[in-house]
Amino acid sequence: MWIDGTATTLLEKIHQQVLSAELVEEYLAWIAQTEPIVQAWEYLDPDHVRHQAKQIDNQYAIDRIKRPLQGIPIAIKDIFATTDMPTSWGTPIQAGKWFNVDATVVSRLRQAGAILFGKTVTTEYATAKAGKTKNPHQPQHSPGGSSSGSAAAVAAGMVPLAIGSQTMGSVIRPAAYCGVIGFKPSFGLIPRTGAMSASRELDHVGCFARSIADIDLLCSVLAGPDECDPDCIDRWNTTQFTQPTDSDRPNKFISIRTPFWNQIEPEYQGRFMQCISQLQAEGLSVEAIELPAAFEQFQHHATVLMATGLAFHHGADYDRYSDQFSPKLAQLIEQGRSFSALDYAAARQAAIDYNAFLTHLLTDDTAILTPATTGTAPFGLENTGSPLFCALWTFCGLPAISLPIGKASNGLPLAIQMVSRRMGDRQLLHQAKRAMQVLNQHWGTIEIASILP
Amino acid sequence: MWIDGTATTLLEKIHQQVLSAELVEEYLAWIAQTEPIVQAWEYLDPDHVRHQAKQIDNQYAIDRIKRPLQGIPIAIKDIFATTDMPTSWGTPIQAGKWFNVDATVVSRLRQAGAILFGKTVTTEYATAKAGKTKNPHQPQHSPGGSSSGSAAAVAAGMVPLAIGSQTMGSVIRPAAYCGVIGFKPSFGLIPRTGAMSASRELDHVGCFARSIADIDLLCSVLAGPDECDPDCIDRWNTTQFTQPTDSDRPNKFISIRTPFWNQIEPEYQGRFMQCISQLQAEGLSVEAIELPAAFEQFQHHATVLMATGLAFHHGADYDRYSDQFSPKLAQLIEQGRSFSALDYAAARQAAIDYNAFLTHLLTDDTAILTPATTGTAPFGLENTGSPLFCALWTFCGLPAISLPIGKASNGLPLAIQMVSRRMGDRQLLHQAKRAMQVLNQHWGTIEIASILP
Repeated sequence: MWIDGTATTLLEKIHQQVLSAELVEEYLAWIAQTEPIVQAWEYLDPDHVRHQAKQIDNQYAIDRIKRPLQGIPIAIKDIFATTDMPTSWGTPIQAGKWFNVDATVVSRLRQAGAILFGKTVTTEYATAKAGKTKNPHQPQHSPGGSSSGSAAAVAAGMVPLAIGSQTMGSVIRPAAYCGVIGFKPSFGLIPRTGAMSASRELDHVGCFARSIADIDLLCSVLAGPDECDPDCIDRWNTTQFTQPTDSDRPNKFISIRTPFWNQIEPEYQGRFMQCISQLQAEGLSVEAIELPAAFEQFQHHATVLMATGLAFHHGADYDRYSDQFSPKLAQLIEQGRSFSALDYAAARQAAIDYNAFLTHLLTDDTAILTPATTGTAPFGLENTGSPLFCALWTFCGLPAISLPIGKASNGLPLAIQMVSRRMGDRQLLHQAKRAMQVLNQHWGTIEIASILP
Repeated sequence: MWIDGTATTLLEKIHQQVLSAELVEEYLAWIAQTEPIVQAWEYLDPDHVRHQAKQIDNQYAIDRIKRPLQGIPIAIKDIFATTDMPTSWGTPIQAGKWFNVDATVVSRLRQAGAILFGKTVTTEYATAKAGKTKNPHQPQHSPGGSSSGSAAAVAAGMVPLAIGSQTMGSVIRPAAYCGVIGFKPSFGLIPRTGAMSASRELDHVGCFARSIADIDLLCSVLAGPDECDPDCIDRWNTTQFTQPTDSDRPNKFISIRTPFWNQIEPEYQGRFMQCISQLQAEGLSVEAIELPAAFEQFQHHATVLMATGLAFHHGADYDRYSDQFSPKLAQLIEQGRSFSALDYAAARQAAIDYNAFLTHLLTDDTAILTPATTGTAPFGLENTGSPLFCALWTFCGLPAISLPIGKASNGLPLAIQMVSRRMGDRQLLHQAKRAMQVLNQHWGTIEIASILP
């Protein structure tokens, strides 16, 4: 029963009378049942979870301070440094590292009273070879990557909240495949200090939940300036998420099918267009537009930034342990080493140019509706899917959210992606909430995957 | 008499009774006398100046709104786009361009009621070959570059205020050579939209004045977020400069002689050390430290960013008109084309690493005291001097100010540089004011150069 709850509903109970020590037992029991199938965790020590819960209960008994995530179970993608759990970055080369400083987001979660259940499976260096995690809806299918375990853990009800990261499509895509909400805020809103780096320009912290209120709650804890992340200085007004929403603002949408529309599974194409019609039928304004041709270069530019970043940050590992690199990652590193400084400068400029166009398009809090993926989760675990529909928004640093829109005929979740102007995160969540009210009527609310046989 | 005034003192008069139409005549007359010697201007049309003054007077007669720079003459480095004056970037290749949108800073100056006197001489693409401008203190010497005309115009009393730009040392150095105050704020505080780009990571807008109050006044107009400069989004609290200063804060200083101390002229070495002693004698705390060895790589990293930026932004000009490029600039462009994306990523990372060290050093609003130049302005106009003592702070994006400390035995100005923590601009101005109170007792206040024979 508790497992069904969102963080927001759990928090009410915890702040009233329920002890988190009791709550975590429920979750641990459920994880014990489901983990053999889902394989979401890279590291989870039940005793350490119990220890945290006891500490939080004791603290609350003394100070009666209602912390914003008090007693709430959360999963941490295994690229964030933790002082009390090992960190492995999805590679045997770095497996089992112990950091002596928490990642900034980890530290903020602890201060907010969250219970860090464990570290979730990531693909190799959050980039390439898939981990062991299975899609909770159909274990023969991929959960998506790279935040595979975080998305699957939330979808399976093992935790109400999880944090992940997105360099191309690593939050939006697994969220879509697993049928949960995935949110990648504006570039610079959540500090990356202590997270494994793939690309300074593209790396974003993101989060997973089963309600927009939970996303809101989690972001209000995670966001805020950090002197150690130079791209996160002064960017953030921490009251952004917690201010009352301005419900008088119009809900204006733009649908963008992108130049890759024909790479989408026909059933998903149909569902996407149905969603547009459903929103319009409720009186919401949805205008279709096409992106200028210049946008077609974004894949090249994003690859320059990502491959160079990987070569820069992980080239030393590659030189020493290339036999333990997947061919895909090895190729990216070689590619990163081949790019020129001018390629790099051009990529950074392209993000400015794209944003100049998008800023005009997204005034007045208009939100983009666009596909999240090419379709449902791929069969087999090797292929974690394509980031084709996510990478442009990551490249531009815009806030993006993946919203479930029911299942396809194969029983796997489908999702629609919403994108907003830079720093328009709060309004995006507001718009997403409005859209979900409409779409849920047709496609149902988010439910925990039926994992157990 | 008016020519002696600072913007702050002039503003009082203008807001009381003086018409800017009268004021500009005084300035135009003075410019007519001094410009044949100083050669600060690339473009100056007296009638256009009079026209602006008339408009501002008329507007004030109607609305009685006291604008923050109402009627104040200002010079604009000729790399900022202006719709009513040509822009040439210091090169015949781009000479006489007319833009149809003002640079953001130009637009803010107009809105603030400033009178844009004209465009001042810059070195070639704000980088290489010197322009025609002479040092107002001794016309056989360089005014420094690249903001040559802006610094010289303020030093000569042709205007109380000027804007320039700094990619390596192009504000601090000419300010030091010309005996005026030059201020380069924190990276991201003043938008660069509409300014010629040399390097996205290094380009800063800066300003020149003859009092710290004027620098404060000018920055309060120039600073503020700009959607079109992605490095300037949300960085700025516009009340920063205009808030009352917190005079209770301690004035703590650190002196850094840098690894290049032995490249400094002995007389300037002595003056620098005297200034330290004078501050200490007044009870101010000055502690000497040395930078870690890793900082010695900054020149390489800064060169990667600058040369790549120049190649990226101006490579097309170079390919078409290489015969009109100076050998120095041609070499920089070739060099920029030779760097790898990994060089670029490493340079960006170095700025993070250096800042991690400096952030700890500069807590509690400590300010660095460090040389501004290698000595007084070089003889001859070809050599605009070395940016050796400026480029590190530019590279790190820290606010830096050049403060005159009298003249050397050769009659040319000397200066000390103060640097503060990132975004500590306001406190830096506060500290600079305190230091100037002490140093002025020994070296005199800033006076207009005695140009006329």
